[in-house]
Amino acid sequence: MSKDFAKKPDLLPGERLDDLQRDGLCLIQNPSWFCFGIDAVLLSHFAETKEGDLCLDLGTGNGIVPTLLYGRNPGGRFRGLEIQEDVADMARRSVEWNDIGHAVEILTGDIREACQIFPKASFDVVTSNPPYMTESHGLVGDQNHKAIARHEIMCKLEDLIREATGLLKPGGHFFMVHRPFRLAEIFDLMRKYKLEPKRMRLVCPYVDKEPNLVLVEGVRGGRARLKVEAPLIVYQEGGQYTEEIRKIYYE
Amino acid sequence: MSKDFAKKPDLLPGERLDDLQRDGLCLIQNPSWFCFGIDAVLLSHFAETKEGDLCLDLGTGNGIVPTLLYGRNPGGRFRGLEIQEDVADMARRSVEWNDIGHAVEILTGDIREACQIFPKASFDVVTSNPPYMTESHGLVGDQNHKAIARHEIMCKLEDLIREATGLLKPGGHFFMVHRPFRLAEIFDLMRKYKLEPKRMRLVCPYVDKEPNLVLVEGVRGGRARLKVEAPLIVYQEGGQYTEEIRKIYYE
Repeated sequence: MSKDFAKKPDLLPGERLDDLQRDGLCLIQNPSWFCFGIDAVLLSHFAETKEGDLCLDLGTGNGIVPTLLYGRNPGGRFRGLEIQEDVADMARRSVEWNDIGHAVEILTGDIREACQIFPKASFDVVTSNPPYMTESHGLVGDQNHKAIARHEIMCKLEDLIREATGLLKPGGHFFMVHRPFRLAEIFDLMRKYKLEPKRMRLVCPYVDKEPNLVLVEGVRGGRARLKVEAPLIVYQEGGQYTEEIRKIYYE
Repeated sequence: MSKDFAKKPDLLPGERLDDLQRDGLCLIQNPSWFCFGIDAVLLSHFAETKEGDLCLDLGTGNGIVPTLLYGRNPGGRFRGLEIQEDVADMARRSVEWNDIGHAVEILTGDIREACQIFPKASFDVVTSNPPYMTESHGLVGDQNHKAIARHEIMCKLEDLIREATGLLKPGGHFFMVHRPFRLAEIFDLMRKYKLEPKRMRLVCPYVDKEPNLVLVEGVRGGRARLKVEAPLIVYQEGGQYTEEIRKIYYE
């Protein structure tokens, strides 16, 4: 496929176009709403998709996760569900700009109704980078874009896990990034819905610092045995990325 | 208190006396049964007890955990419950040798009946270094001492957590060391019995290796919020203990 990189997509006021440094893929973002962070990048790397897999990202926002997943596996089919119409529209314009509409589709809709939007038990993979904070964690102002991305205003963890499980084929894989302080709830809810936690990895800013992210994989109907991987360390002394993080970002 | 270190305790055939390198405390062990490892040492360091606390170690074996906890907090009162009469007897002789019977008591009994052995809601702290393996994990031979220490033959994880919760005062603390591959089950069962996971720490042999132990703290009736600490690294390059492990062992 050929793309004219000199041509700008239709950017709306406040938007910018970011080069994802992967096969020329770009992403439209609105910094006053929300910009993707390392969590989305790490989730896309942690998630494993195979050629032909049908994959759904719940609460896809600007579409960063399906776009990066496509970049790693152009033979997969990716869907993103986003409740905010203006954000979903921005994600669709990124898909159009990248000319990957044959593989990536963004739908507007509510995670809490995902099992009515898509056929049940139809996905090989479900991913999510959901809001981390409950409504009681920190102050929630009005229901603006940032608050919706960070706090469980539109969708609670249980809604997400219930719908994800319902959409996965038996044996299908769920990948999520979240905050470690929610880990007990995460495992509890996953097991409640028979989405067995099979793999997890803590992400620590430095080797001697508390983790601030956790990557979790679950398998629908899997048997109980969790593989806990070595912690992923982001920075080395001096504040530079570790070799592993550099590889995730640039290879 | 004065002890005559020239005098040997009554050792039975196959037993040896080990110096715990803490205030002269010793422990009788039988290497053909089971010897304590780094897990018991790390658990004793992870567990927090206060002066006057009444503390119970479930499945205490040779009594290493209450002995080390006493070493760190001579103002606490410690009980150990052990189902194997010969092992409990060995632990009692260690208590006698250390002359700490005023603070440490070893009882023979079944964890599954702990709430009938002790008054309910009577302990400030419950600790356990239980068998890690389910009966289906690895081969279980006959029900010898090693197998009972390693496999859930006498007591399953759910029995342990149910009884621990029942024995704790509201707000009382539970500390356990276990294998990371059981973490999802651990959290699931703790929350089932309202023993909220509040703190955890993974233990990695090396910084870039998968953790092989996890330390978990729960609070009876606590609210949902887990503190995940920085991973505890055991060895540095070259195979020497890290500074943190040296401190735990020798300070």
